[in-house]
Amino acid sequence: MTAVKEIRAIGVHDYDNWLEPKEFTYEPQEMRPEEVEIKVEACGICGSDIHAANGDWGRHFSPLAVGHEIVGVVTAAGKDSRHKVGDRVGVGAQCDSCHTCTRCKNEHQNACRRMVGTYQGVYPSGKVTQGGYASHVRVNSEFAFKIPDNLSSVDVAPLLCGGITAFRPMMTAGVTKGTKVGINGIGGIGHMAILFAKALGAEVTAISRNDKKKELAIQLGADHYIATDEKDFSKKHEDSIDLLINTGSSFSEGNVSEVLNLLTAFGKMTFITAPPIDEKLSLIPFQMLQNNISVGGSCIGSPKDIEYMLEVASKNNIKPMIETIDINEPNVKTAWERMVKGDVRFRFVLTGYDKYFK
Amino acid sequence: MTAVKEIRAIGVHDYDNWLEPKEFTYEPQEMRPEEVEIKVEACGICGSDIHAANGDWGRHFSPLAVGHEIVGVVTAAGKDSRHKVGDRVGVGAQCDSCHTCTRCKNEHQNACRRMVGTYQGVYPSGKVTQGGYASHVRVNSEFAFKIPDNLSSVDVAPLLCGGITAFRPMMTAGVTKGTKVGINGIGGIGHMAILFAKALGAEVTAISRNDKKKELAIQLGADHYIATDEKDFSKKHEDSIDLLINTGSSFSEGNVSEVLNLLTAFGKMTFITAPPIDEKLSLIPFQMLQNNISVGGSCIGSPKDIEYMLEVASKNNIKPMIETIDINEPNVKTAWERMVKGDVRFRFVLTGYDKYFK
Repeated sequence: MTAVKEIRAIGVHDYDNWLEPKEFTYEPQEMRPEEVEIKVEACGICGSDIHAANGDWGRHFSPLAVGHEIVGVVTAAGKDSRHKVGDRVGVGAQCDSCHTCTRCKNEHQNACRRMVGTYQGVYPSGKVTQGGYASHVRVNSEFAFKIPDNLSSVDVAPLLCGGITAFRPMMTAGVTKGTKVGINGIGGIGHMAILFAKALGAEVTAISRNDKKKELAIQLGADHYIATDEKDFSKKHEDSIDLLINTGSSFSEGNVSEVLNLLTAFGKMTFITAPPIDEKLSLIPFQMLQNNISVGGSCIGSPKDIEYMLEVASKNNIKPMIETIDINEPNVKTAWERMVKGDVRFRFVLTGYDKYFK
Repeated sequence: MTAVKEIRAIGVHDYDNWLEPKEFTYEPQEMRPEEVEIKVEACGICGSDIHAANGDWGRHFSPLAVGHEIVGVVTAAGKDSRHKVGDRVGVGAQCDSCHTCTRCKNEHQNACRRMVGTYQGVYPSGKVTQGGYASHVRVNSEFAFKIPDNLSSVDVAPLLCGGITAFRPMMTAGVTKGTKVGINGIGGIGHMAILFAKALGAEVTAISRNDKKKELAIQLGADHYIATDEKDFSKKHEDSIDLLINTGSSFSEGNVSEVLNLLTAFGKMTFITAPPIDEKLSLIPFQMLQNNISVGGSCIGSPKDIEYMLEVASKNNIKPMIETIDINEPNVKTAWERMVKGDVRFRFVLTGYDKYFK
């Protein structure tokens, strides 16, 4: 197969009317020796897609096709690519890095200061990146991952950003049998976090604003459930969590210090999604000192981390709860609108690519 | 020897005139079975003494004798005490805990929600605690530590609060040979942090507002020095520190985000002293996410931690830089005034107890 000359995509043309996505075409990044071109089969709809599409994270350029939970088949491969034509691979939120800095050399490519996002990023060539709501994507093969045979494309797609985002803080904290892991926010990433934490043997507490998601959380494997609208929840459940993964994308909604009170001594809260760009995180130093607790950010994972996450998912047969929806303009609009309302259990995955991009 | 009926002390009588410390006497806490009474020989003057004496941390009661870097000799011991009359022991910032909570049972007594501070605390009996600017102190023997023979009382005193405060974040972060440790603020605790980090084999960067402490920091063993008044210091030295120990007791003075930019990916900043009680710590979530960094508080250490710290100090012959000063009313005033101005290299230690409390 030869590389395509033009990629068809669906995306935002006007940030003021971001809920009117339209088709466009673009000329892809040059086919570098390390590059792979992937014909997309499935793409999860991540919360980041909404933040990028609605301008929360800036209005960098348009048209913009989002989507960074991509699975597809390699249709062209540069001579130094680590995948070959016909391989089924996945791509997450990062498609390149500088390969020269200390962070890249230490295999922390996800923290490279010149990391290239799969969409809304800029290649070294100056070319902007476009995501997986498209017929194809072209990426550095280091950031494309062989998909284990026992995981279907639609099931594995959400793991490539949401899954690694949930999983990496557990790697950092060394979660193991009996670690008390709390998941604050039971949505797209939160429900995957429950699945991974259980796979690691953790004792899992699901935390949500009210009781509505209790049954689902227990079905997913959570051992305990806390509703933050319960009076004195913070006092009642103090010292119950070693690692708290905060999936919410804003700190202004909840009382961070009440949630931090759930931590054991030397416990840690890790947040994994970005709030609107000007929002600060305000912490009470006394509380952090007295409890010896810490708060940190965690952003996706390195290629090695993602490969490990896929291995854990494969061995434990981890399948996120998804709703598939065929890619086309009205369906993207519908999915985004329902995402904004929280009306999905728990992740949309775009499919039907062959039908639309025929 | 029998326990004393009355303890003589020097302390604050009026918070509005905190720089006029005066002698007073108080009736000590009952002699419980686990208790030891210690005749004080030396007491370091910690930054906390100033915060407590000037009312930064509240005006809980008066008169108040501060001092929680205490070394002395046991003069009375309850039947369950782990020390005997004649033992030379030290006491740090904590003199008791509840012994029943999960944190105490997990040997994190320093994070016990009912921990009793060596001064300005309240015993289960309701009696308030008074510190080591006094003839004697009486504490739960679990919180008194045998002093290694090769460490003199005046040299070891500052380690009992300042030393463990500097050392514990290194234990938490697993500092070892080659770990890049940054010490922000080269004062009482900061200079001890340099000594301990070097003892653990770390590569140490001293960080201060200007170049004034450079020579001293290098003498103490620092490998590198950063002055934060240097233009673009944050950019110039990015990715240079794995663990940053922030010794400053206020976040409003410096630009936290510039200092955080010194961290490597997955780096951590730990702060170890409390700012005025209403000050918040404001962080930029994007910065923490993109760099996968975290920020935490660390408060003194558990009895086990302190014993380990004393062992490390003994083996490595760690001696803080001190200036001794005889205890009496005018000298306490002078020492406090000079502390406030930063005019001490680096720790005052009160001595001459026999002369004053004869």
